[in-house]
Amino acid sequence: MSRSSSFSNLPAEPRLGVFNFSAGPSHMPQEVVDHVREELAELSGSGIGLLEHSHRGPHYDDVNQEAGDVIRRLSGVGDDYAVIFMPGGATVNFAFLALNYLHDGGTGVYLDTSVWAGKAIDEARPIGDVVIGYDGRQGDTFTCPDATRSGDDLAVPTDASYVFYCANNTGEGTWYTEPPITDRPIVGDLTSDIFSRPWPFERHAMTIAAGQKNLGAAGCSVVIAQRDFLAEASRRIGPILRFEDHEKAESILNTPPTFAVRVIGLMAEWTEAQGGPTAIAERNADKAGLVWNAIDASGGFYRSRAERRSRSDLNVTFHTGSAELDAQFIEEAGTHGMVNLKGLVGGMRASMYNAFPRQGAEVLVDFMKDFMTRYG
Amino acid sequence: MSRSSSFSNLPAEPRLGVFNFSAGPSHMPQEVVDHVREELAELSGSGIGLLEHSHRGPHYDDVNQEAGDVIRRLSGVGDDYAVIFMPGGATVNFAFLALNYLHDGGTGVYLDTSVWAGKAIDEARPIGDVVIGYDGRQGDTFTCPDATRSGDDLAVPTDASYVFYCANNTGEGTWYTEPPITDRPIVGDLTSDIFSRPWPFERHAMTIAAGQKNLGAAGCSVVIAQRDFLAEASRRIGPILRFEDHEKAESILNTPPTFAVRVIGLMAEWTEAQGGPTAIAERNADKAGLVWNAIDASGGFYRSRAERRSRSDLNVTFHTGSAELDAQFIEEAGTHGMVNLKGLVGGMRASMYNAFPRQGAEVLVDFMKDFMTRYG
Repeated sequence: MSRSSSFSNLPAEPRLGVFNFSAGPSHMPQEVVDHVREELAELSGSGIGLLEHSHRGPHYDDVNQEAGDVIRRLSGVGDDYAVIFMPGGATVNFAFLALNYLHDGGTGVYLDTSVWAGKAIDEARPIGDVVIGYDGRQGDTFTCPDATRSGDDLAVPTDASYVFYCANNTGEGTWYTEPPITDRPIVGDLTSDIFSRPWPFERHAMTIAAGQKNLGAAGCSVVIAQRDFLAEASRRIGPILRFEDHEKAESILNTPPTFAVRVIGLMAEWTEAQGGPTAIAERNADKAGLVWNAIDASGGFYRSRAERRSRSDLNVTFHTGSAELDAQFIEEAGTHGMVNLKGLVGGMRASMYNAFPRQGAEVLVDFMKDFMTRYG
Repeated sequence: MSRSSSFSNLPAEPRLGVFNFSAGPSHMPQEVVDHVREELAELSGSGIGLLEHSHRGPHYDDVNQEAGDVIRRLSGVGDDYAVIFMPGGATVNFAFLALNYLHDGGTGVYLDTSVWAGKAIDEARPIGDVVIGYDGRQGDTFTCPDATRSGDDLAVPTDASYVFYCANNTGEGTWYTEPPITDRPIVGDLTSDIFSRPWPFERHAMTIAAGQKNLGAAGCSVVIAQRDFLAEASRRIGPILRFEDHEKAESILNTPPTFAVRVIGLMAEWTEAQGGPTAIAERNADKAGLVWNAIDASGGFYRSRAERRSRSDLNVTFHTGSAELDAQFIEEAGTHGMVNLKGLVGGMRASMYNAFPRQGAEVLVDFMKDFMTRYG
């Protein structure tokens, strides 16, 4: 009863004449939007629409299974890893992480590279011991640990329950070029960069990725975790809070966010049709490179607080040095159909995830040059 | 920038030739499905589809505000109550309830009338003290507390932090005819009966209702709570776990399940267009009455474990006394386009929420009579 879709390998295109630079929820491919609209009316000849299917029926079983399978293929993990669809976004799962692994004691190490790493810390502190293993705010510059330094820039107690990092920092425009180097269990927040590039999932005890960026729909998180790590979690919390209980119930412990799971599965299928993370990474580097290069070529008119070594291919952050001019830039860009360019930490941010069309980066760069001519 | 829809007051009709008796996710009105499909393509002329809108932008602000407003109107609560959209289904919020109110000590009283009340108990027990204030399993019969007894059938310690009940028990086919009578704060799970009948929300400290039954989409829960009660919650848990933090952030504490919030808002608007809970309740009583009457008129061929006084207008449960015959019934009904009739606690269950068409109940009753003729 497969309901697999066949998506193309053509690059994503603009839709409706607007370039949506939103950091998430964010631009989706037309093919996926069209497909899910059809399924809302009726899911593969079942006589029932996607939203209306029981999560205990054979049609949702297929949705659930197919989404899990494609995520397993894209991540490349073996049978010692579980793929779970958890309720809620990343922040909810940051809290669950702390409840699972710090509630009975133990120390969570957090590499504090961003606003989002900070959110994870905020959720962990009331629950257990937190150690900040790295500070990514170096003066006015945002950075990530240096992958060439064998972890010697991290402060990690030998008994740490886990080391948490946020792989791509959407607000700051920085990312890790590889996971942090430590012999303690690594937990990665991959919400904004999952399947945007090849990534060594098997170096992690757990990765968490909410859906609304490269996987389409808010309200559900993909968790890929070592089964052994899942088994270590606290039993002094309720079943719905335990990742392992969700895994044993095959992500149907309670009524799951069925629509979001389907959209995540479709977005993952589209990612696979595009050629997977390796092909996608080239396109992302190309798109982001256009904008980073425009910053570098501006003679200092545009600057970024993201350290060059840690520049993200997904979120390009920049500013002019003048908050007024930044506001002018954002407003004028809006009148030219480029929306959601306001940064999280001031200035501008161009978020360009897997499905964001290259044409959007081109139009932005043209506008940056024009704006500089008028205000530089 | 209102994007309000205009739904009709006509009764919901069958779709696609299938009667979907699912207990949730469940049948939705064609008008609402059509409307949300349009918005997936583009939300009210914004150039961006519903799934792709930033939750920090003006369009989602309107979605969020409109959904909150219509729920406030339908529930009739005053300004001393907050309306919050929480991530996750009811079970997630059962766990949050215990974390908010039992984590620092205190006792949660649970009226155990069902499988779902049991789930709430399972989430609370690891967190704090739990007292079972009522046992709804009386021999082979399912029941709810007697509204005529002024609460004297409940065991509630005078210092209870709250008294939890599940207003409609989907598995058992029972419901409360009014909230339990107690002077301690009342927390109601209204997941399956919200806006199915007039209900005194202001007698509660908090009500919790997941979306996938009368409000359309799984993955989000509507919480209606006294602001004073919210302020009493533990501060020894992270922000994302605290109802009050969500309320202060106007349900945009993190990326909310934006699609589910929109569907909930549209389903609530449709409910209002239908005439609201009073008009809906009449239709539900009529639909359910057809099936309950068929059971009563069957001379004992069909029986229900639901006590007569507590019979639900939303989930009609029945069985033949033979597990084999029940299985035969469910299979044959399926071949006649009546699906998802398998009960949660054995036998059959016909779930008929607000949007379920009367014709489905009529067809089921005809089939029940025919089946009895052949096997009675």
